[in-house]
Amino acid sequence: MSARDKPAGTLFGLGVGPGDPELLTLKAARILREAPVIAYPAPLEGDSMARRIAAPHIPEGREEIAIRMPMVPARFPAQAVYDEAAETIGAHLTAGRDVAVLCEGDPFFYGSFMYLFARLAERFRTEVVPGVSALTATAAAAHAPLAARNDVLTVLPGPLEETALVECLARAEAVAIIKVGRHLAKVKRALAETGLAEHARYISHASMAEQRVLPLADLVEDTAPYFSMILAHRRGTVWSKTQ
Amino acid sequence: MSARDKPAGTLFGLGVGPGDPELLTLKAARILREAPVIAYPAPLEGDSMARRIAAPHIPEGREEIAIRMPMVPARFPAQAVYDEAAETIGAHLTAGRDVAVLCEGDPFFYGSFMYLFARLAERFRTEVVPGVSALTATAAAAHAPLAARNDVLTVLPGPLEETALVECLARAEAVAIIKVGRHLAKVKRALAETGLAEHARYISHASMAEQRVLPLADLVEDTAPYFSMILAHRRGTVWSKTQ
Repeated sequence: MSARDKPAGTLFGLGVGPGDPELLTLKAARILREAPVIAYPAPLEGDSMARRIAAPHIPEGREEIAIRMPMVPARFPAQAVYDEAAETIGAHLTAGRDVAVLCEGDPFFYGSFMYLFARLAERFRTEVVPGVSALTATAAAAHAPLAARNDVLTVLPGPLEETALVECLARAEAVAIIKVGRHLAKVKRALAETGLAEHARYISHASMAEQRVLPLADLVEDTAPYFSMILAHRRGTVWSKTQ
Repeated sequence: MSARDKPAGTLFGLGVGPGDPELLTLKAARILREAPVIAYPAPLEGDSMARRIAAPHIPEGREEIAIRMPMVPARFPAQAVYDEAAETIGAHLTAGRDVAVLCEGDPFFYGSFMYLFARLAERFRTEVVPGVSALTATAAAAHAPLAARNDVLTVLPGPLEETALVECLARAEAVAIIKVGRHLAKVKRALAETGLAEHARYISHASMAEQRVLPLADLVEDTAPYFSMILAHRRGTVWSKTQ
């Protein structure tokens, strides 16, 4: 089906950036002004982080769809939730109304938007609007360049098994460990075992009011918030003053 | 030296995003309105890509510093160029004038800003403003999520030796190959050898007017422009409709 044959509404996957509402793109802000319907992931109870980030840019009176999901979703309930959300959103698109799905950070960097994309992009005109990811916002907050020149950069999810983490870290040059949360103690051990702990930095809530940046060695806790990351580099820091 | 003791001017490392001027952040646009001095990398002759992206947001009459560099800089000329730029920028900062250094994409994702940061951040108040990186803009353009759940994402520079590329790709799950340029033929061979070529996608000039997206298998050229990337995933695509 070509774009021309598709119904009039456009589905936007809208990156709203890492937390600071000023880190939205001009494009995301414009689409928020224009889209009659917005949708966003939310916990079973309470506020949506993505909506909170975008709030200063959402005009009054918009139709809103909260896609409510347990924080650690099981596979089958998640499927049902996305199926239902896709049906609701699809009805708006069929009726010719654009729908902007808000995504923390960037829609396609470990984001849940892909589950709606998989359900809707073949049937409806779809545009993915990239956003500032937590990855680069974290590096900015830490004053720590992620990678330079021909460095290989590895992004590692904290929930991986300890043996897998150690195996990846042993070979790694520049590393960002995401989704640290309750995996902090395991991640700390894996970094220590692979010689990366000494210069590693811990960053939580990059770009938000609660932002915290410190050497991993100074972190006493054994669990971290969901919005936390650890950056490390085989050479200690990526840059040297002689370059 | 605490921030309070530093001279009045602030050095901004300003991510201007991947190419579309609408993918600047609101924060970058505001700082461009306010900063009396802007600096940007540029080739020895001709226009600066970073300045071209930011142009719609730069008011008239700003003091401008073009940091001119050969496209493939040797180490020692590059040092001299950054030394000189740091001196010029440092003089403005000392005089109390903010300086915004424009960076294509994000300042700390393989960006040259780190060389100015290394020379200036200890002496002057410095703020790094993250931007939309070419990495996520490319995924958005290709309608290809980079990574999901516990995928390990590897960012690989094309200039690496073929054996190093093959070694990394053989173990890789989700891959983005950056700086493809004249390394395209080598990168194609490495992807084929490691079973990743079939579903790989080629994207050049993501978010720009010249944007091009196609299956790597359909690309007949053996060189690519500087602003090009290849995305691949061990599972073919990152998402499945059953999730």
